[in-house]
Amino acid sequence: MAGPEGKESKPSRGAVTLKTPKGTRDWSGPDMLLRDEVFKSITDVFKRHGGTPLDTPVFELKEILAGKYGEDSRLMYDLEDQGGELCSLRFDLTVPFARWLAMNNIQQVKRYTLAKVYRRDQPAIARGRLREFHQCDFDIAGVYDPMIPDAETLRIIVEVFEALDLGITIKLNHRKILDGLFAVAGVPADKIRSISSAVDKLDKMAWPDVKKEMVEEKGLPEDVADRIGEYVRHSGTVTEMVDFLRANETLSANESVKAGLDDMALLGSYLKALDVIHKINFDLSLARGLDYYTGLIYEVINLPPKNDDAEGNKKSKKDDPANQVGSIAAGGRYDNLVGMYGKRTIPCVGISFGVDRIFTILKARRERENAAKARGTDVYVMAFGGKEFEGLLLERMDVARRLWNAGIRAEFSPKVKPKLPQQFKAAEDVPLGVILGKDELAAGQVRLKSLGQGDDKSDKDRGILVKLDDLADEVKKLLL
Amino acid sequence: MAGPEGKESKPSRGAVTLKTPKGTRDWSGPDMLLRDEVFKSITDVFKRHGGTPLDTPVFELKEILAGKYGEDSRLMYDLEDQGGELCSLRFDLTVPFARWLAMNNIQQVKRYTLAKVYRRDQPAIARGRLREFHQCDFDIAGVYDPMIPDAETLRIIVEVFEALDLGITIKLNHRKILDGLFAVAGVPADKIRSISSAVDKLDKMAWPDVKKEMVEEKGLPEDVADRIGEYVRHSGTVTEMVDFLRANETLSANESVKAGLDDMALLGSYLKALDVIHKINFDLSLARGLDYYTGLIYEVINLPPKNDDAEGNKKSKKDDPANQVGSIAAGGRYDNLVGMYGKRTIPCVGISFGVDRIFTILKARRERENAAKARGTDVYVMAFGGKEFEGLLLERMDVARRLWNAGIRAEFSPKVKPKLPQQFKAAEDVPLGVILGKDELAAGQVRLKSLGQGDDKSDKDRGILVKLDDLADEVKKLLL
Repeated sequence: MAGPEGKESKPSRGAVTLKTPKGTRDWSGPDMLLRDEVFKSITDVFKRHGGTPLDTPVFELKEILAGKYGEDSRLMYDLEDQGGELCSLRFDLTVPFARWLAMNNIQQVKRYTLAKVYRRDQPAIARGRLREFHQCDFDIAGVYDPMIPDAETLRIIVEVFEALDLGITIKLNHRKILDGLFAVAGVPADKIRSISSAVDKLDKMAWPDVKKEMVEEKGLPEDVADRIGEYVRHSGTVTEMVDFLRANETLSANESVKAGLDDMALLGSYLKALDVIHKINFDLSLARGLDYYTGLIYEVINLPPKNDDAEGNKKSKKDDPANQVGSIAAGGRYDNLVGMYGKRTIPCVGISFGVDRIFTILKARRERENAAKARGTDVYVMAFGGKEFEGLLLERMDVARRLWNAGIRAEFSPKVKPKLPQQFKAAEDVPLGVILGKDELAAGQVRLKSLGQGDDKSDKDRGILVKLDDLADEVKKLLL
Repeated sequence: MAGPEGKESKPSRGAVTLKTPKGTRDWSGPDMLLRDEVFKSITDVFKRHGGTPLDTPVFELKEILAGKYGEDSRLMYDLEDQGGELCSLRFDLTVPFARWLAMNNIQQVKRYTLAKVYRRDQPAIARGRLREFHQCDFDIAGVYDPMIPDAETLRIIVEVFEALDLGITIKLNHRKILDGLFAVAGVPADKIRSISSAVDKLDKMAWPDVKKEMVEEKGLPEDVADRIGEYVRHSGTVTEMVDFLRANETLSANESVKAGLDDMALLGSYLKALDVIHKINFDLSLARGLDYYTGLIYEVINLPPKNDDAEGNKKSKKDDPANQVGSIAAGGRYDNLVGMYGKRTIPCVGISFGVDRIFTILKARRERENAAKARGTDVYVMAFGGKEFEGLLLERMDVARRLWNAGIRAEFSPKVKPKLPQQFKAAEDVPLGVILGKDELAAGQVRLKSLGQGDDKSDKDRGILVKLDDLADEVKKLLL
């Protein structure tokens, strides 16, 4: 940094708008701590499953991203052409992952990435929708025996939301079943993707509206739409749905449906062994918007907590972000994407967690529970004395140094002669205080005092006397 | 992601260049693990000192960044004007921090940020210089008694490099002493910053060349340059240097020098209490390039390890990145920067760690030490059996599930019927193996086997028999 500064060249103050760019935010304080807790819960699970981390640049060559996002490409942030390569900010974590696999000729990996992605969309910050937002992806790439990595991915979803203590249902479907079902219903091959998109809106729109879109906008004959409507209203457990579909002779005669059903039956047995089958809802109306899925697809829905009191329920349900954020994780199998970059096709299955949405739900819950503020500091080192009080700054420094050496988070007042009430105020939310007095120090001792809620914060309770050399150990005992 | 994909619309393969943009890199594997270790070591220290994390958007409004970086501004990455606000990628973490302080009217905080910053500079990847690179900043903002936060910042530097096991010297100087010294030497007020920049090159250039720049390029009279040269070749301990400068009557009569010396003497007493004084070298040639420093300035130099053998020393010293990366952390006091945004001036002192440079040094050390690869997985769950071996996939899943439930990192082969040598190969670098056999399972037991180096990897040593219900506990004992 070199340039105008300070007194020499004051810029016209107030001319600069003090804000972050549209759709972006700063993260600090309790929000940041909560966000990092979410990150840690999720990545701990990824590591437990042998995931290896990957971090890619925030921008990619424009040609790498080109032709991957269809009409959504208009939402991409481009860097200005300043000479050299043309680049855009990453739009998701999947395409950079596919680029990395192809570039390094990696045949098999479990990788995870937690990073920000960028879309010039209309922001809705209260619902956790921003232009700069987080994605947290786990993907298994490589040729494996059928449905084994798919089952592990679903197990990971369950472990993550157990770690976050969020009730969930996983909606499951299979592209091959859906495609076969559309074919049997009479949808022309070239309309399957666009009809699939219409079906995907069933979680937000009623059937008559979806049917209208199919018939009026997309030119589907009404009887075909009605047959689709008949199928896609079904959902249930994996076993129920596999039995139901196999019982339908027309459907199960279709090769694509048959292949999908074999996958689902196999998956069901794996999900039982992994103890996640009870979280699954096989839902024929789940279609997922993205084109690139080729097999299993899934979406995770947050279930609002059941222990709301009946009284305030109606209002709180509407206001609860859990009911506004939509799916909180989603993914599926995409076997052809990596082949777009390299010579070789590498089958992949993955899951993307909507960290900002999850954060929004957990923040609302934390505010409901009025949870105690998490504060980073363990010990506040303070001093007091009579009229000739000299502040004991060097002694406070020495004590803090001992605590830091022992890995304890400690602070002290940055005043030479701090007043006692100031020190107690600064120590709000800090669990322990170390109090220095001249006489005690002369005997190699300090006072250690609990500052927790309900504790006597006056100087009447002066805590216990502890030898300086034992201080760090005593603090550690109390912090356990 | 919607759009062309797979078989329908193959893009012309090979037309796309599979690379990351110039000056950027992917992070994965051992590099990523080492980088994250460095991050953790540093942020652990920040937390111990009561630091609160801040994360800002990757881009800022252009007008926020304007006029802060002088001629270096040409290195800024601008976003394309796609309608709406004009933005640029962040250039450092200091300006976003100052924007955040002013925007939220924060009077006092210890904040840290670990994030990537962007400069369109000439990259030198081997020396850890990239266009997308990390900064890791800790700053103390607010009105405090003199030199207390400055002393804590220096303590933080020492704790960080102790945690990383890197030998360091901290070069220290004070802008007020330097400015006073230039004034006494006869440098005109309007030339002080540019002469200061020239002095700062003394760690890379010999004095005759620096003098030449002062006299020939910057028009300083030769006798003035010679007087500067006389002063700036001095360095020593804080006490030595304070005594030396105070003994010089001409210098110590200067108000600016006097104020700086009072600061340094006070700081010296604090650095003794904090036990970091032995790391300090008070060096009058340290000037720091950036304009915005107003008081104490410092730079951290890595000391190469002393236990190199005398033989290979010459070559290895030259090749060792420790001797090529320059300073690995730097900072100082900047009391006027925040005032550029808000009505109020908030004094700040801070330190920025050059994470990529530190990474480069540690990676070279790790490669020298030929350290064992860190691998994320604790247990590999495998199965074997005779001719009628069915693979025991569901049973392997069940065992993995038990281990995951206990928080243990476990993997198994994603094959229905994996071969035993394949499984042992996949378990390379994994410390423990759980081996399933049909007979043992029937008795509710599995075999637990150490897979460490030197252990017998054949199936002769079949490990110890463990009850399934005790497995997680037994594994935890062995992992301790």
